[in-house]
Amino acid sequence: MPLFTGVVPPVVTPLTSSFEVDYPSYQRVLEHLIENGVHGLFVLGSTSEVVFHDEATRRKIVEFAVKIAAGRVPVIVGAIDPTTDRVIGHARDAQTAGAAAVVVTAPFYTRTNLAETIDHFRYVREAIDTPLIAYDIPVCVGLKLDRKTTVTLACEGTITGLKDSSADDGNLRYVLADTAHLPDFFAMTGSEIVVDSVLAMGAHGVVPGLANVDPAGYVRLWEHCQAGDLTAARSEQERLCRLFEMVWVSAARTSGGSAGVGAFKTAMRHLGIIDTNVMARPQRALNDEEAAKIASILARPAYSAGLDACICTPRENQSAT
Amino acid sequence: MPLFTGVVPPVVTPLTSSFEVDYPSYQRVLEHLIENGVHGLFVLGSTSEVVFHDEATRRKIVEFAVKIAAGRVPVIVGAIDPTTDRVIGHARDAQTAGAAAVVVTAPFYTRTNLAETIDHFRYVREAIDTPLIAYDIPVCVGLKLDRKTTVTLACEGTITGLKDSSADDGNLRYVLADTAHLPDFFAMTGSEIVVDSVLAMGAHGVVPGLANVDPAGYVRLWEHCQAGDLTAARSEQERLCRLFEMVWVSAARTSGGSAGVGAFKTAMRHLGIIDTNVMARPQRALNDEEAAKIASILARPAYSAGLDACICTPRENQSAT
Amino acid sequence: MPLFTGVVPPVVTPLTSSFEVDYPSYQRVLEHLIENGVHGLFVLGSTSEVVFHDEATRRKIVEFAVKIAAGRVPVIVGAIDPTTDRVIGHARDAQTAGAAAVVVTAPFYTRTNLAETIDHFRYVREAIDTPLIAYDIPVCVGLKLDRKTTVTLACEGTITGLKDSSADDGNLRYVLADTAHLPDFFAMTGSEIVVDSVLAMGAHGVVPGLANVDPAGYVRLWEHCQAGDLTAARSEQERLCRLFEMVWVSAARTSGGSAGVGAFKTAMRHLGIIDTNVMARPQRALNDEEAAKIASILARPAYSAGLDACICTPRENQSAT
Amino acid sequence: MPLFTGVVPPVVTPLTSSFEVDYPSYQRVLEHLIENGVHGLFVLGSTSEVVFHDEATRRKIVEFAVKIAAGRVPVIVGAIDPTTDRVIGHARDAQTAGAAAVVVTAPFYTRTNLAETIDHFRYVREAIDTPLIAYDIPVCVGLKLDRKTTVTLACEGTITGLKDSSADDGNLRYVLADTAHLPDFFAMTGSEIVVDSVLAMGAHGVVPGLANVDPAGYVRLWEHCQAGDLTAARSEQERLCRLFEMVWVSAARTSGGSAGVGAFKTAMRHLGIIDTNVMARPQRALNDEEAAKIASILARPAYSAGLDACICTPRENQSAT
Repeated sequence: MPLFTGVVPPVVTPLTSSFEVDYPSYQRVLEHLIENGVHGLFVLGSTSEVVFHDEATRRKIVEFAVKIAAGRVPVIVGAIDPTTDRVIGHARDAQTAGAAAVVVTAPFYTRTNLAETIDHFRYVREAIDTPLIAYDIPVCVGLKLDRKTTVTLACEGTITGLKDSSADDGNLRYVLADTAHLPDFFAMTGSEIVVDSVLAMGAHGVVPGLANVDPAGYVRLWEHCQAGDLTAARSEQERLCRLFEMVWVSAARTSGGSAGVGAFKTAMRHLGIIDTNVMARPQRALNDEEAAKIASILARPAYSAGLDACICTPRENQSAT
Repeated sequence: MPLFTGVVPPVVTPLTSSFEVDYPSYQRVLEHLIENGVHGLFVLGSTSEVVFHDEATRRKIVEFAVKIAAGRVPVIVGAIDPTTDRVIGHARDAQTAGAAAVVVTAPFYTRTNLAETIDHFRYVREAIDTPLIAYDIPVCVGLKLDRKTTVTLACEGTITGLKDSSADDGNLRYVLADTAHLPDFFAMTGSEIVVDSVLAMGAHGVVPGLANVDPAGYVRLWEHCQAGDLTAARSEQERLCRLFEMVWVSAARTSGGSAGVGAFKTAMRHLGIIDTNVMARPQRALNDEEAAKIASILARPAYSAGLDACICTPRENQSAT
Repeated sequence: MPLFTGVVPPVVTPLTSSFEVDYPSYQRVLEHLIENGVHGLFVLGSTSEVVFHDEATRRKIVEFAVKIAAGRVPVIVGAIDPTTDRVIGHARDAQTAGAAAVVVTAPFYTRTNLAETIDHFRYVREAIDTPLIAYDIPVCVGLKLDRKTTVTLACEGTITGLKDSSADDGNLRYVLADTAHLPDFFAMTGSEIVVDSVLAMGAHGVVPGLANVDPAGYVRLWEHCQAGDLTAARSEQERLCRLFEMVWVSAARTSGGSAGVGAFKTAMRHLGIIDTNVMARPQRALNDEEAAKIASILARPAYSAGLDACICTPRENQSAT
Repeated sequence: MPLFTGVVPPVVTPLTSSFEVDYPSYQRVLEHLIENGVHGLFVLGSTSEVVFHDEATRRKIVEFAVKIAAGRVPVIVGAIDPTTDRVIGHARDAQTAGAAAVVVTAPFYTRTNLAETIDHFRYVREAIDTPLIAYDIPVCVGLKLDRKTTVTLACEGTITGLKDSSADDGNLRYVLADTAHLPDFFAMTGSEIVVDSVLAMGAHGVVPGLANVDPAGYVRLWEHCQAGDLTAARSEQERLCRLFEMVWVSAARTSGGSAGVGAFKTAMRHLGIIDTNVMARPQRALNDEEAAKIASILARPAYSAGLDACICTPRENQSAT
């Protein structure tokens, strides 16, 4: 059976106002997730602001998460940096700290091609004893792990799983078919908003950043899908889609990365889980006005039938020539 | 209720060896689709090689399709050219010829922004009396019709429907929610391979190029989805996904457009529906070797459990340093 | 020697308030250019809003320009539409109307690859008797004519010239070296702002939209370069760079295309050359506030030593953590 | 006067067959550059494979280069990693090791926007006492430092210089004009092939990777430009353009990064400067067949009048319909 399944949130890393990891808040995040039934934890992913942390900090984050998890759920760990040997260094650190698996992206900054990227995963595979998961995130690294690349790595045993944050669900469907004969192989989507669809295609799990805010919702969604109750799944998914609208609150002012993780942190602060919504530099945290909008999104009735306000562009006279 | 629903194939335009429309073949295509139960026909879309045809040819194509359809199914017509007033010319021609609705993309070649694109649809709306459908196809026009643009046009009544060929199904989900209060509005996906997912989200129809080859398959898929039999839908969809692999047969030699429509034409020739697989210039038709591969894809057992051959990249020595 | 050299402006097409060609204004534009010493005229290019005009209008535009030019300068004509046979139609019309050469882009909307694009130019070449010029404009068609493609077409005699609007001057340098043995072949840049550089590399001419506003400036720049007076050339070029800043005046509100050609039209209206600054639909014309800024740019002292105002972003407190 | 001017090569980092820095070879590289008259050294840039090296290795590289340079030329040092605080760490290390200035890119992997990128440079500025140079390299980081961003940072004193590897020379021209009132500010191009053009625009220096292979050529080119001898400059530049063709030798098999730096290393091995052409993992080194092509490029007569072989695509029958 697949090595991992279910809801495996990419865990937010709370920071103090001096940009250090806020471990008391971090402990509350981890407990909040585990208590609400998630099936695993993914630390040091993009949502964890992994590339903002140096080696020593990363080691402490992993050790802390493994200690708090205490075997209740597996802790999967990102080993994310531009190039092979630096990734191997992070991966060995993660293995030493008790990671259940290591998650690795294609190289970045480097303009590496697909052939070199296949080699990259092979080199990492040879250097560690822990299961290896490929992380397909073209918006960050500039390269899509195409079907042939992923299936090659899966069939030869280099990778045991895929975390797909590419939003190319048609491609994922082919990868699932091509790897159906591999009993251990699993694929998880990084999407927050088409989880029901991707699970219905046969995906094995979901890694939604929004689960930091509402883990119980994603666990319910997973359970509805497992039970084959597609109607309930769709309702829960649509509720979560409305909640996910928080990621666009600061989009006019901050980058996409800051807007998403920044919204999750702001919501978690509002819910009393963490102490600040500070973002690692040079990202901008959400301001008070944006935080008030996040609060109002959290306060919306769960299954509200329509939008709070029309998003339409008002008609200008000039177009009515 | 929505103006159109169901399976509405974008109809291939068969050509003679001298690059003219082959009307006897075209009649067979139209009958083939209608007899297999499709719910509408979309002529002069990208799959119809619309931008390769001049005004006079387009008029003849529409008149012919309307005559053959003879009211059995609605004929929806693309009015596709770079700019507003030329689109209006095509749209009026389509209306005169009996189009049930007109399908319009954003301007192209022009670097038009979203505000100007909204005006574009408004100008077309004011110039015709036929329902207007927005065609979101960023791979061809270089601009994504984002959620706000589409919802603005839908709420103010400029467009009655959306054909979404952007593969951004998360965005489509939001558009469906934002337009749920509009009884006539409909959204169709241009995807061949995630139809079950998008219908489960609430989309109203599907416009798959592959339905030229296997209309009965897409009608069955639609009916399974309507009946709520998601297991049967998924099986049918996965069979169609395997059939869709034909579009990559010539990908190393031809452009994406030629590879897709060229594969459909080659399969239809193999099935005896049309006489040639000629593509409009300067596109390259599939050659004999590629045609043999198409034939072997058509001959695969319908629900084959695995791939015919592993797609993996063989391991080179150089990576095993 | 090269077929064409010198300053060949892409001629703006003035419109009436009802979006028809304003021929009295157009005559003044043509005379304005010829009287100021340009070496040729390029009509029906992107700056002419070519893709906004239908066949009949295009024919009239070319006939009018040829009539006004009356042999004083050659009239080069764009044959620009998405696909081969439609381009051939335009090209034959242009030839009939007296075009000295025809300018053709890669296909667009179609996702054509480079091999098919080479065929495209060959088909056009075989269909006409007029010299053929390739127009490299990836921002509009989505495909760069790479070095190998351009040189192939030049060496085999398919094209006699290149209009390069790709801003890839390093690539142009290689094309110039690879075609140095072809006595007739010429390459012109579409740039307004690095003309001195590209002429110093050996390019044969320039096709600057801004020459509609200041043809004498570009003629002076050309003559300085011909005379080898690089200091005078640089001064003139830098003055024209400052004038070119008009194209960003409306950039926050209109598309790039509207902002550029719209600025030229607005400046020409201010100078009394044309009657309106109307843009073809759905483009937005510059408004009164923007027109005032254009006027102030035109009024700047010719060789002003610095910027009128600093363009810097003011420092916010939030960054000073 | 500008802080730095002239030829400042981005220094290749030679590796042993076990992927460690080969310091004897590195010493020969540094001496080769200094003896041939370069005006500075840029270590730990993209050409140095900076993102492949960890902190400890980077420190050793800088210390070694500073020691060998021994004050003969300034050593400018890249502090390149995805995010602000990690960059600050590298920058402080560089400062401690004797860097004359620190070179910093926009953040990467992070989807940071321009406002956050401005903050990034400000944070680094506040953390170090060494001059700060912005490195504009969109092909690696996915973001162009636009005119307004660069000029803002220059005017407020955050940066003292720009290394422009964006190939947007029109934009650079505006930056040069906007910063002409800042006596210390300088801009250098990362181009190998339009150096004469960019220097003629007023740029202050050049950072060409190819200068690792032929430093004397770039020093001659610089001197011709300084002397105003544009004819000699163009000849030298065109010779270097032919030499630069080595970067495409392995382009069908390796990534762009490997193809460029890999070609330089292979040429330097051929010239006896370094011992291996090993590339940091997962990049692929050039193989023997490719190395033979590099050797033949190095053996071409310096001012050969034409290409060794036509690069044209042979005409296929299929296009001659």
